[in-house]
Amino acid sequence: MEFEAFTAQELAAYLGGVPDVRALLGDPDDLEVAEVGDGNLNYVYFVTNAKAPERSVVVKQAPPFLRLVGKTWPLSCQRMEHEVAALRRFGALCPQHVPKVYHADSKRFLMVMQRLASHRILRQGLMDGATYPRLADHLSTYLAHTLFYGSDLFLAPDIKKQAAGAAVNSELCKITEDLVFTFPFEDHPSNVYSPALPKAAIERLRTNEPLRIAAADMKWVFMNHAETLLHGDLHTGSIMVNEDETFVIDPEFAFYGPMGFDVGAVIANLLLAYFSRDWHGRIDGRDPGPYQEWLLEQMVRIWSGFNTQFLELWRDHESRSKRRFIGGQAESRAVAAYRAHFMRRLLADTLGFAGCKMIRRIVGMAKVAEITRVPDAEARARIEVRCLRCAEALLVQRATLGDIGRVAMLAREIQRDGATI
Amino acid sequence: MEFEAFTAQELAAYLGGVPDVRALLGDPDDLEVAEVGDGNLNYVYFVTNAKAPERSVVVKQAPPFLRLVGKTWPLSCQRMEHEVAALRRFGALCPQHVPKVYHADSKRFLMVMQRLASHRILRQGLMDGATYPRLADHLSTYLAHTLFYGSDLFLAPDIKKQAAGAAVNSELCKITEDLVFTFPFEDHPSNVYSPALPKAAIERLRTNEPLRIAAADMKWVFMNHAETLLHGDLHTGSIMVNEDETFVIDPEFAFYGPMGFDVGAVIANLLLAYFSRDWHGRIDGRDPGPYQEWLLEQMVRIWSGFNTQFLELWRDHESRSKRRFIGGQAESRAVAAYRAHFMRRLLADTLGFAGCKMIRRIVGMAKVAEITRVPDAEARARIEVRCLRCAEALLVQRATLGDIGRVAMLAREIQRDGATI
Repeated sequence: MEFEAFTAQELAAYLGGVPDVRALLGDPDDLEVAEVGDGNLNYVYFVTNAKAPERSVVVKQAPPFLRLVGKTWPLSCQRMEHEVAALRRFGALCPQHVPKVYHADSKRFLMVMQRLASHRILRQGLMDGATYPRLADHLSTYLAHTLFYGSDLFLAPDIKKQAAGAAVNSELCKITEDLVFTFPFEDHPSNVYSPALPKAAIERLRTNEPLRIAAADMKWVFMNHAETLLHGDLHTGSIMVNEDETFVIDPEFAFYGPMGFDVGAVIANLLLAYFSRDWHGRIDGRDPGPYQEWLLEQMVRIWSGFNTQFLELWRDHESRSKRRFIGGQAESRAVAAYRAHFMRRLLADTLGFAGCKMIRRIVGMAKVAEITRVPDAEARARIEVRCLRCAEALLVQRATLGDIGRVAMLAREIQRDGATI
Repeated sequence: MEFEAFTAQELAAYLGGVPDVRALLGDPDDLEVAEVGDGNLNYVYFVTNAKAPERSVVVKQAPPFLRLVGKTWPLSCQRMEHEVAALRRFGALCPQHVPKVYHADSKRFLMVMQRLASHRILRQGLMDGATYPRLADHLSTYLAHTLFYGSDLFLAPDIKKQAAGAAVNSELCKITEDLVFTFPFEDHPSNVYSPALPKAAIERLRTNEPLRIAAADMKWVFMNHAETLLHGDLHTGSIMVNEDETFVIDPEFAFYGPMGFDVGAVIANLLLAYFSRDWHGRIDGRDPGPYQEWLLEQMVRIWSGFNTQFLELWRDHESRSKRRFIGGQAESRAVAAYRAHFMRRLLADTLGFAGCKMIRRIVGMAKVAEITRVPDAEARARIEVRCLRCAEALLVQRATLGDIGRVAMLAREIQRDGATI
């Protein structure tokens, strides 16, 4: 059967037939349906009771193709099941940062979820120079809880292996394998280069051996290290914020993968915001420096907060269970030393993934608005070259930087030294 | 239903009812059934036509418990399905080194396989000081083919993820997680220490931080890095040899894990044979030196041959498919550099696993005969201390040794310097 998107009336009638949703929204005749055009993959609707606008939900439906491209890029509708399962799992672990799922229909590849009406997409907020005082705490809490509780540090090994098997998500992983880890480093037709980006910068992505080796290492890690249930696409467009709250949405790329991939996505997007701020600040007539420092501060606080909370969860769990991952029943110097070592290794993965994610946003098909909205080609290219230099340093030096403070210093140096290859 | 092992008559009658097996063996009334007592996990029978002894098969049946321990250690019979699936897969990749499966019965957890009548267990051969001129070539061929063709370097990513899901083997992996990576490093009741093993050597396994960190790293890698379909228990008791042929048997521990685990198992067992040779050679009235050098030579040739063949398979496949794992269609310096880097990383994993496997054979529950058969407690402890020193060096220096030749040098130094902690 050919896929047909719902008309507004059909969707209202459908929702009226689901008792739990009807209880939330009220009479189907009062419902207003607005299609939101910003989904890359899916159809997304806001459905609101016109007589009581606080009664509102989001409906998300997966068509059997990539919506951004159309029917020429088929995509299995099963992705909605991955998203629902991940939202439920993350919601159980971290209810304050994950929208509630009210209803899921696996036959129609559709779900009804909490409307975040007073929140906006973080990427938009950062482009406007907004600050969010609780963002770093919230994201580090979300990351620590979701990444720890899916892993062998918490789950019994058989349960973890079962969970990893259930979360296999080949189709969406393939998109990441190609678009993040492969195409940017070759002469691929899907790559998009901005007009003033120097040829040398593009060439360097294809020929620089340490960079190519590091990127291939990260691809191998992405494909093979089934450490925990990841969000899988945790950029600043998947985060909704206001002054008080932070929600992580859209986990359709969820799968069992390396912990550093989610943390790295957050860091990459903060760094893209940092380098592009130079232009956004100036056209607003503001010195970009203070906001750039705020962005770096968030990066440092997110990693540090994540590191602290993850270690707390780990220690508390092992203290209660009286078993240590490395063996033994009691805390010891070796136990503590291994945990610190584990976090250093995780930071290295994180920085490697951050580098790959920055590169794909510069030369790959899917861009980020803070860079594409820079209308001056030369100014844009200067931002892009800085992003590429930073990404290369993160990849090549990922195991030696050793400290998130040094990542912030690296970003400042690249910002200051200018945009030469 | 309580498990009851077959009587000889019942087994002969059962085999007579399987047309393919009957064709191989002939009249059930002519069959002789001999139970072979050397399986740790399973019941194993040789079934032979008394009138035509060349008509002979092996029957293997999994009882619902660990045979070595008995009904107090329950174990799912599904392990037989893992073994059959792995034998068929490895047999397709490497028919000359894997026994044929003639018949598998998933209801009775039983299989009928090729009898290797002119071959013996490699561990026994090494204890007798036998040499096998083709062993290193055969094992490196087996390792290169089985490890390469199960991985993302060859399989399409969706097929690989499907294969990894189908090979989940939680129950037997748990045995390895506990007995190889956890219990040896703690004061665990299942550990068995030989009487003269110095307390300091045992204490060191529990307190030495770099060693504990390295062992925990390897445990994490074992549990998380789903690189390829492994044999999972590739010690010298799982290899059958004669002058001309080499077969790898007993893959019930098969699962998707890190490539270095299988290669490391082979190397660990050659090193255990090396250090114990000092005693076996002397009581045979022979200078142990030349045979010890032969053992190290096999270790070096197995790694080198594996390295060469694995790279050949990789290059050939990418040349035919016109796609490189790291991106790009053509060979380039970066492509070659990544492959070399990949093999260095794989050697590091290999040495780390070899270290863990040596340690578990010294202090863990399951020992190896070349060491337990040393009756002189002091002589045995000297061998054990050398094994532990070598294992620690392999674990802690796994990423810096960088070359299998240096591993051989390390072993010679430890042999020469004597057995002090």
